[in-house]
Amino acid sequence: MKNQLIIVKVGGKIIEDPDSLQSLLSEFSKISGNKILIHGGGREATALATRLGIETKMVEGRRITDAEMLKVATMVYAGLVNKNIVARLQAINVDAVGLTGADLNLMQSARRPAGEIDYGFVGDVRTVNAPALSYLLHRDFVPVIAPLTHDGQGNLLNTNADTIASETAKAMANEFRVRLIYCFEKNGVLADENDENSVIPLLNFDTYLDYRDEGVIKEGMIPKLDNAFHAIAAGVEEVIITSAKNINMGGGTIIK
Amino acid sequence: MKNQLIIVKVGGKIIEDPDSLQSLLSEFSKISGNKILIHGGGREATALATRLGIETKMVEGRRITDAEMLKVATMVYAGLVNKNIVARLQAINVDAVGLTGADLNLMQSARRPAGEIDYGFVGDVRTVNAPALSYLLHRDFVPVIAPLTHDGQGNLLNTNADTIASETAKAMANEFRVRLIYCFEKNGVLADENDENSVIPLLNFDTYLDYRDEGVIKEGMIPKLDNAFHAIAAGVEEVIITSAKNINMGGGTIIK
Repeated sequence: MKNQLIIVKVGGKIIEDPDSLQSLLSEFSKISGNKILIHGGGREATALATRLGIETKMVEGRRITDAEMLKVATMVYAGLVNKNIVARLQAINVDAVGLTGADLNLMQSARRPAGEIDYGFVGDVRTVNAPALSYLLHRDFVPVIAPLTHDGQGNLLNTNADTIASETAKAMANEFRVRLIYCFEKNGVLADENDENSVIPLLNFDTYLDYRDEGVIKEGMIPKLDNAFHAIAAGVEEVIITSAKNINMGGGTIIK
Repeated sequence: MKNQLIIVKVGGKIIEDPDSLQSLLSEFSKISGNKILIHGGGREATALATRLGIETKMVEGRRITDAEMLKVATMVYAGLVNKNIVARLQAINVDAVGLTGADLNLMQSARRPAGEIDYGFVGDVRTVNAPALSYLLHRDFVPVIAPLTHDGQGNLLNTNADTIASETAKAMANEFRVRLIYCFEKNGVLADENDENSVIPLLNFDTYLDYRDEGVIKEGMIPKLDNAFHAIAAGVEEVIITSAKNINMGGGTIIK
């Protein structure tokens, strides 16, 4: 029987608000057993870039990471956000260790080729070093992973945190029964975006396709759910999309 | 017989120049066996603070770390500098992991009490978690430590990198034969500061006191050597002060 591993991914909006973040970390500390926290970065990087006079370039709603923006992302995600989360977790008895994909060679990626759009220093994940994560978990260390990877040639690359979460979950599924929790500001995947009580409790791939065809599930939720179903297909036991306050309470949308 | 552990501390001036840094990392990669790299931050933090319009406050030549400057230090030391070193080391087959004192609870410190001068968010080291470092070394992981500690209450604190190096060396001396190498821009401790060939080859505590009384050893070298002799008194086998290019070549000043 495999041991359980719970991977929690928390996004930018929760991280930006100190109270929401503290509440999330407190809930995270109550999870017993093996666990990993993966965080986004969000608007703090944009805010720092603005203060530094670095222009945030967006193409079709997606950020372009030029060399200056990569420095900002490295400072904010791997420095400010990651290390403050680690210090706060240590204060509530979680033996956290903050990492990027470069540390322990955890996650190597390839720079996305420039097609019609050149996203710049953005990496698509190629390999995840599951044995290194296992070695940390075995000692009850709790990895806290920032959304940066490396190319093995000495360069860091900006990488989507949802993808880091699903790739980590997939890689760990050989050794653990993995539950992947995406927590964000809503209660789950909503059938009616204006009604917080309209959470869809269970999604499988067929019902997902139906909801998507009907336009009930749309926009930013589609890549998140595509990531989720890729994880399920690769052996992850379940993926849950829920609000940060409910990660120990059940509820949310369960994806199997 | 204890195993050997080599701890290399590299300061700000080497880190600021990409070629010097690459040369140091290349020399570091050639060290076989257990090793730890500890780095300072230096002027990059000051440069970022200036770009952000944050005033660098100095009292009697020492930097005051207010809340804004602590954020800058966290971004530059734990983010930009640390993670770029880690990515570069990974590219030359060193399985590096970048850490602060908060990670794995490696180093707890107490905020320095405000006396005549309030240094702000500056920590004096209280505990070093040697077993956690041993656990990493046992798997041939190579810790790369940034000059930040934590207070156990959720706060990061700025901490002198020379002190982090000597405290780490002292804590590891129970388990390892520790050699601590401070590398900087000169060839060693010089008897004549204008003559690079005047390296003092060997210092013990008595000869150190003589040189200090004569004014041959002065200013910034005094706290560095005080740290070194504290480490020797606590069981560290030897401390070496040398230039970055010579860490595998012998030479420099040996302190026993």
